[in-house]
Amino acid sequence: MSGPALHWPEARVARLATVGPDGRPHVVPICFVLDGDTLYTAVDEKPKTTRRLQRLRDIEANPEVCVLIDHYEEDWSRLWWVRLRGTARIVEDERALPLLVQKYEQYRREPPRGPLIAITIEDRREWAAVAR
Amino acid sequence: MSGPALHWPEARVARLATVGPDGRPHVVPICFVLDGDTLYTAVDEKPKTTRRLQRLRDIEANPEVCVLIDHYEEDWSRLWWVRLRGTARIVEDERALPLLVQKYEQYRREPPRGPLIAITIEDRREWAAVAR
Repeated sequence: MSGPALHWPEARVARLATVGPDGRPHVVPICFVLDGDTLYTAVDEKPKTTRRLQRLRDIEANPEVCVLIDHYEEDWSRLWWVRLRGTARIVEDERALPLLVQKYEQYRREPPRGPLIAITIEDRREWAAVAR
Repeated sequence: MSGPALHWPEARVARLATVGPDGRPHVVPICFVLDGDTLYTAVDEKPKTTRRLQRLRDIEANPEVCVLIDHYEEDWSRLWWVRLRGTARIVEDERALPLLVQKYEQYRREPPRGPLIAITIEDRREWAAVAR
């Protein structure tokens, strides 16, 4: 594995999959930042909405999550993805917030309004269409 | 809801979330085509690999899946996503293959080597950052 997948922590968007209490999968796009073996993402909804957010309810019931970072383009020989498995927890402290703000200037204008989710990465799998 | 999300069937890539027999979520990027209320995606790995593919094992054990089509750009007022829930089945017949080939010229050069997955859409939720 070489090439773009090496730079996956710089990707601007990822997808977070969780499993609901009903056993059904749920997937949302997320902004994220990597700090060592922990991936942080912010919940950006209003507090009232946040409390109802399925990804938070899911994580409370089942902290095992999957995060996909992938690259699409029409030249399929350039496709790649990185898939992370980990354990998520909802963190109310805001130590990771500056990391998110540093990566996303959009958060400088309007910081995320909900809690952060911290995902401890336990496994990483990488794939690329062709060796580079 | 209006604007780009209306055109989500034309998106080139989506993400498919499944749940494994161990209850853990799994997510992969997929190419897809919509035909009425059914979304088709092809498994593009070699047959030997295919039989081991987690998404196929997951679907056999638990056909409930979630598909996300989302749009990212740096202007966050233009973000949108469409999330589908449905029931997946592995289909060996190839009636849907021409639909995939029509959408993706890449398949004309090299048709997918694995089976197709047919997802009957039971629920669709759409979101956009701002009304357009």
